[in-house]
Amino acid sequence: MLLQSIDDGERFVLTSPTAMPRAAGFLWNRRMMMQVNCRGFAVARFMQPEPARYTHAPNLEATTFMQPEQPYYAHHPGRFCYIKDEETGRIFSAPYEPVRAKPDRFAFSVGKNDIRWAVECLGIRVEVEVSLPEDAAVELWRVRVANPSGRPRRLSVYPYVPIGYMSWMNQSACHRPDLGGVAASCVTPYQKVEDWFKNRDFKDRTFFLYDREPAAFETAREAFEGEGGLHAPDGVRQDTLGNGDALYETPAAVLQYRIELAPDQAEDYRFLLGPARDDAEIAGVRERFFADPGFARTKSEYAAYIARGRGVLRIETPDRHLDRFMNHWLPRQVYYHGDVNRLVTDPQTRNYLQDNMGMCFIEPGVARAAFLHALSQQEASGAMPDGILLVEGAELKYINQVPHTDHCVWLPVCLRAYLDETGDYGILDAPVKDWQGEDAPTAFERICKAMRWLLGARDARGLSYIAQGDWCDPMNMVGYKGKGVSGWLSVAAAHALDLWADICEQHGHTDLAREFRDGAGDINQAVNTHLWDGEWYGRGITDDGVVFGVSKDAEGRIYLNPQSWAILAGTADTRQRALMIRAVETQLETPYGVMMLAPAYTGMREDVGRLTQKFPGSAENGAVYNHAAAFYIHALYAVGESDRAWRLLRRMLCGPDDVDYLQRGQMPVFIPNYYRGAWHQYPRTAGRSSQLFNTGTVAWVYRALIEDLFGLKGCPGGLRVAPQLPRDWQTARAQRAFRGARFDVHYLRRPDVDGMLLRVDGEPLRGDCIGNIQSGRVYQVEVRVPAP
Amino acid sequence: MLLQSIDDGERFVLTSPTAMPRAAGFLWNRRMMMQVNCRGFAVARFMQPEPARYTHAPNLEATTFMQPEQPYYAHHPGRFCYIKDEETGRIFSAPYEPVRAKPDRFAFSVGKNDIRWAVECLGIRVEVEVSLPEDAAVELWRVRVANPSGRPRRLSVYPYVPIGYMSWMNQSACHRPDLGGVAASCVTPYQKVEDWFKNRDFKDRTFFLYDREPAAFETAREAFEGEGGLHAPDGVRQDTLGNGDALYETPAAVLQYRIELAPDQAEDYRFLLGPARDDAEIAGVRERFFADPGFARTKSEYAAYIARGRGVLRIETPDRHLDRFMNHWLPRQVYYHGDVNRLVTDPQTRNYLQDNMGMCFIEPGVARAAFLHALSQQEASGAMPDGILLVEGAELKYINQVPHTDHCVWLPVCLRAYLDETGDYGILDAPVKDWQGEDAPTAFERICKAMRWLLGARDARGLSYIAQGDWCDPMNMVGYKGKGVSGWLSVAAAHALDLWADICEQHGHTDLAREFRDGAGDINQAVNTHLWDGEWYGRGITDDGVVFGVSKDAEGRIYLNPQSWAILAGTADTRQRALMIRAVETQLETPYGVMMLAPAYTGMREDVGRLTQKFPGSAENGAVYNHAAAFYIHALYAVGESDRAWRLLRRMLCGPDDVDYLQRGQMPVFIPNYYRGAWHQYPRTAGRSSQLFNTGTVAWVYRALIEDLFGLKGCPGGLRVAPQLPRDWQTARAQRAFRGARFDVHYLRRPDVDGMLLRVDGEPLRGDCIGNIQSGRVYQVEVRVPAP
Repeated sequence: MLLQSIDDGERFVLTSPTAMPRAAGFLWNRRMMMQVNCRGFAVARFMQPEPARYTHAPNLEATTFMQPEQPYYAHHPGRFCYIKDEETGRIFSAPYEPVRAKPDRFAFSVGKNDIRWAVECLGIRVEVEVSLPEDAAVELWRVRVANPSGRPRRLSVYPYVPIGYMSWMNQSACHRPDLGGVAASCVTPYQKVEDWFKNRDFKDRTFFLYDREPAAFETAREAFEGEGGLHAPDGVRQDTLGNGDALYETPAAVLQYRIELAPDQAEDYRFLLGPARDDAEIAGVRERFFADPGFARTKSEYAAYIARGRGVLRIETPDRHLDRFMNHWLPRQVYYHGDVNRLVTDPQTRNYLQDNMGMCFIEPGVARAAFLHALSQQEASGAMPDGILLVEGAELKYINQVPHTDHCVWLPVCLRAYLDETGDYGILDAPVKDWQGEDAPTAFERICKAMRWLLGARDARGLSYIAQGDWCDPMNMVGYKGKGVSGWLSVAAAHALDLWADICEQHGHTDLAREFRDGAGDINQAVNTHLWDGEWYGRGITDDGVVFGVSKDAEGRIYLNPQSWAILAGTADTRQRALMIRAVETQLETPYGVMMLAPAYTGMREDVGRLTQKFPGSAENGAVYNHAAAFYIHALYAVGESDRAWRLLRRMLCGPDDVDYLQRGQMPVFIPNYYRGAWHQYPRTAGRSSQLFNTGTVAWVYRALIEDLFGLKGCPGGLRVAPQLPRDWQTARAQRAFRGARFDVHYLRRPDVDGMLLRVDGEPLRGDCIGNIQSGRVYQVEVRVPAP
Repeated sequence: MLLQSIDDGERFVLTSPTAMPRAAGFLWNRRMMMQVNCRGFAVARFMQPEPARYTHAPNLEATTFMQPEQPYYAHHPGRFCYIKDEETGRIFSAPYEPVRAKPDRFAFSVGKNDIRWAVECLGIRVEVEVSLPEDAAVELWRVRVANPSGRPRRLSVYPYVPIGYMSWMNQSACHRPDLGGVAASCVTPYQKVEDWFKNRDFKDRTFFLYDREPAAFETAREAFEGEGGLHAPDGVRQDTLGNGDALYETPAAVLQYRIELAPDQAEDYRFLLGPARDDAEIAGVRERFFADPGFARTKSEYAAYIARGRGVLRIETPDRHLDRFMNHWLPRQVYYHGDVNRLVTDPQTRNYLQDNMGMCFIEPGVARAAFLHALSQQEASGAMPDGILLVEGAELKYINQVPHTDHCVWLPVCLRAYLDETGDYGILDAPVKDWQGEDAPTAFERICKAMRWLLGARDARGLSYIAQGDWCDPMNMVGYKGKGVSGWLSVAAAHALDLWADICEQHGHTDLAREFRDGAGDINQAVNTHLWDGEWYGRGITDDGVVFGVSKDAEGRIYLNPQSWAILAGTADTRQRALMIRAVETQLETPYGVMMLAPAYTGMREDVGRLTQKFPGSAENGAVYNHAAAFYIHALYAVGESDRAWRLLRRMLCGPDDVDYLQRGQMPVFIPNYYRGAWHQYPRTAGRSSQLFNTGTVAWVYRALIEDLFGLKGCPGGLRVAPQLPRDWQTARAQRAFRGARFDVHYLRRPDVDGMLLRVDGEPLRGDCIGNIQSGRVYQVEVRVPAP
């Protein structure tokens, strides 16, 4: 058993450093995030205000978004500890890199609030733990070196942090006895004068502080490494580290402790690693955190922070894996997205809205503010911008500089979840001041305007223009000349308009409801006329009138999104739906989930664009793109296809056995944005996790589990109960927090019932809505559902 | 002896891979350049048309200028060959990385046309050679594996090229039996539609072709490396490579040859490595180069190309080191600069002009065209732009986006050398059509306009505005508010105006000559009034009126450039000059050359700017910046300070013994842009070579040697002879090509002469100018100079 769950899923433990070499956990707070893998490699970023690094690659790395699917390499940033047996001269390193000595025991243990390793090699046990405080960009490390060998041992212990290539302009490092650690400095380069005023207060120092004074140190990577290489550094092979400084040389922080351990004796160390502006800040960090014995108070504050993201559902089902994931990891990942917005300053509008849709279940007040903040950046035309700026001075970067046409869609889609969960229809009447001007229409008026923008941005056929892209953004050459249309965006607009029409109705605007519902109907008709391909809907029509994503295409023949949303929008009738679902099953399902399209493009199709440049099976080009797959699951639940939905959902959350984990290369502590697809073309690499935990998937999966599978969804009148449990579950329990009350729900499958039978506090309930909910109360709910 | 010269300096050989780990040679043609170091690491770029890579770092590297001073790391691009003894399983790699086994013999041999290694380890000898063709972006590799061990051997031979992280979007590699090699593919990402049309024809493939079919191969780095690491890859430790493909995994090209070698037997292999657009291009490369046995014809064509850069001077002096450098390496580096403009598409204007000043001595026709091309991009105001665009679609990048005020200075400075060398005053009357318009003034008129721009861009004191920077460009906050002035630029303008006044006079424009000479006089007076600090000139005055580069400054107290140019411009009188020279000697001279300023800034001085952000001793901040040092030498020769000039010149070209080479870490095959300075502050790292061979230094050093030391300088009437030989030379010979004739010059130091005695073809010459030169003739010149 390579992968074990501890405390019923509160931690996952991996017992081999080589079985899943990329397996990683991640920690974050509002100032920083770090992803550390089982072998000791690490990626960490902090906000100043744009994401910045304090440990670096050995060369000048490009500034780009996270790309954790790419493999690590010897000099990649990480956190390591060499151990040398002073009697034999033999060495190993914990957790595994850079020496890669085969450990006698190995445990990489990912918890919600910290990440730990326990490694035994050469009869020495090294325990390492990293955690973060709630409110500062600093890593808290604890290291214990123990002697279970039964005989006295003489060791040297070398904590090692490769600080890396900080700057081509100015970098250095030295030991600072006054600060109690190694301090490395760099200067962020500027060329234009105006940039200097932006950069001058950057935290350009990296500190590595100790709580126990070392016998020796080294601060230049090459001096430490010598000819031995990182796997057998000269610094470790020699008697004593050289106590050198780094003068424009690549900074590193290495300490040497000489210890003698009696049998069963252990030594403990603590370290602090992070960025700082100046000496005073470093001294402050030292004082604050080392004053806290064992980091106990800091850890408990952080645990309390993470616990605020526990969400609204606790479950107990026959599926232990699901329980663990749902009770611990999924809400944590949803909270991460909602609380820190992926640690960017210009989240894509659709991401920002969906991440906050997830936040409706965690901290609805945050979600409310975010929806209003997004609306405040609406353009005069009613269109939504490509990204939402979160801090002063932020700019739209990367893909956000390319115009996309789908952002308005997400307003009613995400707001629907907020209204259902909170019942706070008052948000609609909130005035939203303009980002640039003085005008302050209500949120309701703004969304009406956004819906009219969607209705307007259509061609003569009634289909939505795609311009340079819509969702799954890299499809950017379909309509850049202003003519091409998107099948997906058309049905998505129809769905959005329908949802908005419902809200208009609930808000007392029957006339508006009719206007938008009629619009949705028009779109559905146009889509059926121009894009129904016989067994599924096409993906779009290019500037030059070529319909694509249809049966005559050799590659990109079928796309998932148009089908999912045509189901949601009611574009498809029952017959069409059955055909579509069969087509998806035959052409898109794989052992690792549903692919976003198939067959993956193997080369550029110029009239489609950037998507088709991606590697087949990667990202959007035929990957099992979990965000799209989650929508399909959402759509399947919406039309009662619960068996199929559950099968795909279960597949997304990793299979039940080691084989699946090994192929995916990921521990079940988050859902990645994709698993590699192109399963028919490249079976060897299909299923591999992207390792990227930034994904719109989680909000939808969380919502689907709460509202669809467990069927505990809000409505204006209260809590509607309509579960779609897996057919092999005989019983399950759920504890649902909702509008201040708690619902302890017991599901029972009974052969003797016809429809669902509902009892609340022992009393049978008519209908499916538990109304008149009193905040603070605990409700006992029994749900009997018929056997399948 | 670690460093040996072969064939009297045509090659240099380093016999240890660890003594100077960064020691490198470079090769180029008009399509590409490569710098390979003694250990096998390599940096290579080709033009498409912007510089691009075909072997990559293991992560996504930033696009930036060359930064070869930074240390390499395990997964850095390189070209390697593993050898495994099949009987013992022991391995090593040639030349040295990644295994780093201690070789029994080692030779890294840098030639002008190729670079070679010979490595012996485990009783096996590996000889490797790389060369380039004249006209294509492809590396030609020859590998010989020989058995000098005296017994039969069974080996596996593994050529290994880490192709690296090609693209986050799409990368792959596989063995292509049809092409006879490994082909790796990537897709250059684009985001905006318009970028696609720029990128679509990029050479996004990397090929590694063999002339002998291997027994096995591997094309994914991680599969090859496994848990062993690059120093002991699983692929090599196993029996056979896995024959795998790379599907979005990091591409690598590894081949395995199994061979049995009788005693003294050898096997030969050839490989081709480079970028290509498509299969057809790869097939064409294969066909062309493998058809040429031993690459013999290709190598001889390339040798002919390099020989065209041999320059105008051959020498034979008591200083063997100088002879080797002057006869082989210096003109080669000058030719590199002039022929390919550092392989950029937007050279800085001052670099472009100075590089072509060097080209006056190599291919004056190229220099002529370049001067006119630069003038065609003159702005309407008379100012010169920050960079000269060389190809259609090129853009000003990096530092060229920051406005600098010195570019006009270089027009007369560089043109002076051209006129002296060629006597082609006709260039002045050449019409130069406007870059954007139709206007076509003559070159003479344009330069007059540039000179008037210089005269105009001064403040009320008569000093030149510095704006966001002048030469040694990072000093960019002195005058960004529009008030600050530059002491250096003021004296440089005075020098330029003086030079131009001379040319006006020679061209018959006495009135203009007076105008410009008066202007120069005004400037000199202003400089003496406002910037003479008592023992040297200050560097400038900031926007807020602070004079800097003066005795009261604790850092940046004295700058070299204002002194050099004040000597050239005649700003300083004899007394001032003596004081300045003494100040430079005391404060700026180090064992490795003259620093650009001292003491180096240790932190940002906000009113000076970016320069002071650089690491003390690096680049402009107190480095021995050879370009500035060359100007000082030029100035010293101009005023007859020949002993001092020679001492500094000799120091720049590396000391005579191993100790100097070891500290500098560089073989004497090029002059780097700087040696590390801040000698008083950081003696440990002072003197280290930047390893960067792009530098304006070489044109000036070449010119100083020809015109000043050997005193063979052109003038309107012919060749003026005025040597300033080192005082300990009793005799020397020089062969000077000049205006189509050849001058075989024999220098003799004689105690019996008073002034210089000149004989041409045995006849005494009155004066110092050999006139009436007949093209095609060989002149025998004897120069007798008095003993010192």
